[in-house]
Amino acid sequence: MPIDPNAELEITGFAWVPPFAQGHVRDLRPRWACEEMGLAYRERLISALERPEWYFDEQPWGQVPYLRDDGIAMFESGAMLIHLGEKGGLLPMSGQERGTVLSWTLAAFNSIEPYIFEYINVTVFARKSDWAPLREPSLAKDLGKRLDGIARALGHGEWLAGSFSIADIAMATVLRNLEQTELLATRPILSAYLERATARPAFARALADQLTSFATHAPTAGQEA
Amino acid sequence: MPIDPNAELEITGFAWVPPFAQGHVRDLRPRWACEEMGLAYRERLISALERPEWYFDEQPWGQVPYLRDDGIAMFESGAMLIHLGEKGGLLPMSGQERGTVLSWTLAAFNSIEPYIFEYINVTVFARKSDWAPLREPSLAKDLGKRLDGIARALGHGEWLAGSFSIADIAMATVLRNLEQTELLATRPILSAYLERATARPAFARALADQLTSFATHAPTAGQEA
Repeated sequence: MPIDPNAELEITGFAWVPPFAQGHVRDLRPRWACEEMGLAYRERLISALERPEWYFDEQPWGQVPYLRDDGIAMFESGAMLIHLGEKGGLLPMSGQERGTVLSWTLAAFNSIEPYIFEYINVTVFARKSDWAPLREPSLAKDLGKRLDGIARALGHGEWLAGSFSIADIAMATVLRNLEQTELLATRPILSAYLERATARPAFARALADQLTSFATHAPTAGQEA
Repeated sequence: MPIDPNAELEITGFAWVPPFAQGHVRDLRPRWACEEMGLAYRERLISALERPEWYFDEQPWGQVPYLRDDGIAMFESGAMLIHLGEKGGLLPMSGQERGTVLSWTLAAFNSIEPYIFEYINVTVFARKSDWAPLREPSLAKDLGKRLDGIARALGHGEWLAGSFSIADIAMATVLRNLEQTELLATRPILSAYLERATARPAFARALADQLTSFATHAPTAGQEA
């Protein structure tokens, strides 16, 4: 099991988050990468509700994950996927395979997730605002075009770059936010891809590990607010 | 001069775009990186107005830039910055410096640009829509917090990771979209940072090269529509 209190590699996550966010906090990405590649890591858990002031010196916006490994500290889950992928083999070190994995990894973070961020904002967090229902149609249309581009490139392929890679960890964790939406249901290539990715045992272990830490640190009644 | 028709490294850009987009097309990023590191490249220019069907087999959404180098093809300007930075020295190959450069590069693309994409959408492209004026205040507030995090981390430093790196090419090209906005004007650390970055001779050469190709390929009257 990659979680090992004595491991050198350390991933910072939140001790507890409200139920709607559980299983979706972004430390899931480096956890998943470590599980895939058998890299042992220890956890450092901080409070999401009262983020320690010193933590903003490590992570500019007080977010998780944060990673320390071999004396190197990093923020941004995408940067961690590159670091871990180079260490454990899910990012080839040269050739077209490296080019393709880097292209799709950056695509997940810059060409797809920005639309999904805002789509979740419009349909969940800000859904009762005056602007969100008016914004939804044009956003869904633009996001749909982005999704069509992934589906077309994937075709009958199993993974984005041939073999499973950090690009699939990036893209699957991005697409997961659209689970149970029409946008995914109407694109069987993408829903099958997401199902394939999340059926991997390493994904299940990473998810269970994140959820375990929340169960262990759930606030007692009255503390929650 | 890095532009050399016989160079092995090829950057695909648009032959011409409307004036509002000139100087902002994303092939500016790999051009700038090549100029900084003295990497010779040739141009391949395609039509932005009628994107060739075959091009979607190379770039999933028909966008530019696209890069070919040493037999490796890549899309996503962020992926190209990593590839070129490793080749030319603006992305250290190991240690904390690599960790910091990767963190800030991914931050530019995933933690900052998504907010700026939508801010430009709200204040420029969709400004006459029913939803954009209603969306603007909350978006400006969230974007402002993100900008404050960069300014706090930068402090009195010259560049994001100590020495100038691909992280600065990424962040400066992202922040440039806020030039002449209050969001930047009210944050002198960031406006000075952007000014410092765009005062670099390599930036000026990259910008001039992009603009030259537009001037050479401007449609004649009547063709433009």
